[in-house]
Amino acid sequence: MVDQTTRGAAQKPFLRALAGETLAKPPFWLMRQAGRYLAEYRATRSQAGGFLDLCLSPELACEVTLQPLRRYGMDAAILFSDILIVPHALGQKVGFAEGEGPRLEPIRDAAALARLDPIGLHRRAAPVYDTVRLIRSALERDFPNIALIGFAGSPWTVACYMVEGAGSKEYMQVKEMAFGDPALFAKLLDVLTEATIEYLSAQVQAGAEAVQLFDSWAGAVPATHFDAWVVRPTVRIVSALKARHPGLPVIGFPRQAGHNLEGFVTATGVDAVSLDPSVPVSWAAKVLQPKVTVQGNLDPVLLIAGGDALRRGVAGILEGWSGRPFIFNLGHGIIKETPPENVALLTQLLRA
Amino acid sequence: MVDQTTRGAAQKPFLRALAGETLAKPPFWLMRQAGRYLAEYRATRSQAGGFLDLCLSPELACEVTLQPLRRYGMDAAILFSDILIVPHALGQKVGFAEGEGPRLEPIRDAAALARLDPIGLHRRAAPVYDTVRLIRSALERDFPNIALIGFAGSPWTVACYMVEGAGSKEYMQVKEMAFGDPALFAKLLDVLTEATIEYLSAQVQAGAEAVQLFDSWAGAVPATHFDAWVVRPTVRIVSALKARHPGLPVIGFPRQAGHNLEGFVTATGVDAVSLDPSVPVSWAAKVLQPKVTVQGNLDPVLLIAGGDALRRGVAGILEGWSGRPFIFNLGHGIIKETPPENVALLTQLLRA
Repeated sequence: MVDQTTRGAAQKPFLRALAGETLAKPPFWLMRQAGRYLAEYRATRSQAGGFLDLCLSPELACEVTLQPLRRYGMDAAILFSDILIVPHALGQKVGFAEGEGPRLEPIRDAAALARLDPIGLHRRAAPVYDTVRLIRSALERDFPNIALIGFAGSPWTVACYMVEGAGSKEYMQVKEMAFGDPALFAKLLDVLTEATIEYLSAQVQAGAEAVQLFDSWAGAVPATHFDAWVVRPTVRIVSALKARHPGLPVIGFPRQAGHNLEGFVTATGVDAVSLDPSVPVSWAAKVLQPKVTVQGNLDPVLLIAGGDALRRGVAGILEGWSGRPFIFNLGHGIIKETPPENVALLTQLLRA
Repeated sequence: MVDQTTRGAAQKPFLRALAGETLAKPPFWLMRQAGRYLAEYRATRSQAGGFLDLCLSPELACEVTLQPLRRYGMDAAILFSDILIVPHALGQKVGFAEGEGPRLEPIRDAAALARLDPIGLHRRAAPVYDTVRLIRSALERDFPNIALIGFAGSPWTVACYMVEGAGSKEYMQVKEMAFGDPALFAKLLDVLTEATIEYLSAQVQAGAEAVQLFDSWAGAVPATHFDAWVVRPTVRIVSALKARHPGLPVIGFPRQAGHNLEGFVTATGVDAVSLDPSVPVSWAAKVLQPKVTVQGNLDPVLLIAGGDALRRGVAGILEGWSGRPFIFNLGHGIIKETPPENVALLTQLLRA
């Protein structure tokens, strides 16, 4: 039972779970819930130029953010955007070639790093803040129980793209910089940490009620450097955000962090941790859930397979985590081949 | 101290470490130690047609296997081959386009699975067994203290390639089969498990003194299915091999298995476990090393960076694991951009 004197926002199931409350039914949302698996998304996207244009067009980005809510009524909306908005807003050239993934003009030395323009961050990211404002007022009007999540990539993961210039299998360039010129790499992480604080803080001022930090490539960090590349930047971001916005819930997502996960949760001060499908539900229930709200961790391909496999996957998570605070989600982003009717089935299973 | 009555093979430091002995200096080898970072490899490869031709040309494959030993004198040679030899030997079309990664005619249904030809396995894999024989006799002649490792991919990882038809980011096709038609996928794993037993057993008969199972994509397995897709096939392979070849050491490498690693070690009966760089040395020392020999886990990019970063990385592993049995290795394959002189430095650090 929640004290009725609690401020309005905390009535939203998603925020209650983040505040550590155990709900009879877990709130849910799906990473990348606004996306290509939805016909209406594809239609809106075709009105924008490229993917970056879509991210930077407040009306269109707001529209696609709301689309999955109209169908499924998740408990949270997540700002439609991309983790590469931060490098873009720092002045790095970022492009998304259709079907090819992102391409950036790579930063490999001090001169390239010095050309970044942190002062221009808010100016270049302004359309994102406008999007947040639009979404928040649309939610207040049409979906008063749905919370709004802002997000950014974590410094390590964003640095991977900034140094590699693209997705990577071996993270050779970024690790070569990190190992070979630790001072330069520390400076890059520092620039990103500060930019991320500013960027997320502005999202919160514009109306985001919680933020998630996506560290998609945390699994590529050697254990010897997990503290320096992942934990310490996260600590700084979390503490700065909480100092500026008391009570703001922060979700960390150090994907495939394996045995570094428990230390991450203990050290960073996050309110919740999002887990990938490789994390055993029983282990997380025992070790993580007493400390923070857990979020996850259905294999996204189960949403493609549907049927009994999906039912069993959902049941396993509900059984394992229902006794303590949790948020149902996928363990990774929804895949574009997902049949929308399977998301409807998932919604039904979670609301039953 | 080793009992001098022990059979000759057990005198080799690599095999002694696998047998659970703690050596004053750890034996070492490097995953993908025969490869493109060596000029002599590139020269030999240019004599073969494609990559598959090189794998299936015993003299050339033997030659490239020996090349790194001549430079660095590692404690183990690993058969030069590829994990996709098993699908090839089962009759699936496998190709390696230059710079593009492997391409296979994907297996997506029962009819395609039925077209596999397990009876032809040994005939098609025969050149690999010839290679093993050549390498072993070259080692006996020129490198009597260097052990020979045979290898195969683990069923899950090989199944990923067989169903996807290529490398993959989301493993959508293979998981769709596994979730949507568990009986068909179990049959595929079963065919692969049996083929892997036969294939590795033939390598041992030809002269391999230990075998390693590469499960490169173990980190993509949801925890709910880790037992069925990874552990149980491995249990069958390990027990069948040990029944046929008493005393044969088996190394498992469930890459990025995270919290499923401890169960893997306990359940499968492997003699050693190879660890990726994300695994904390201290955790492995405490939890895994009392049970099995550990192997790893230097970040391969440290071999590119060289210098103090490499020295510190090596020192950390030596300090963390020296009290119990271990084999020094990388946490993943050597990268083609690695400067050979850094491998020389590594050798010097390990032999000092």
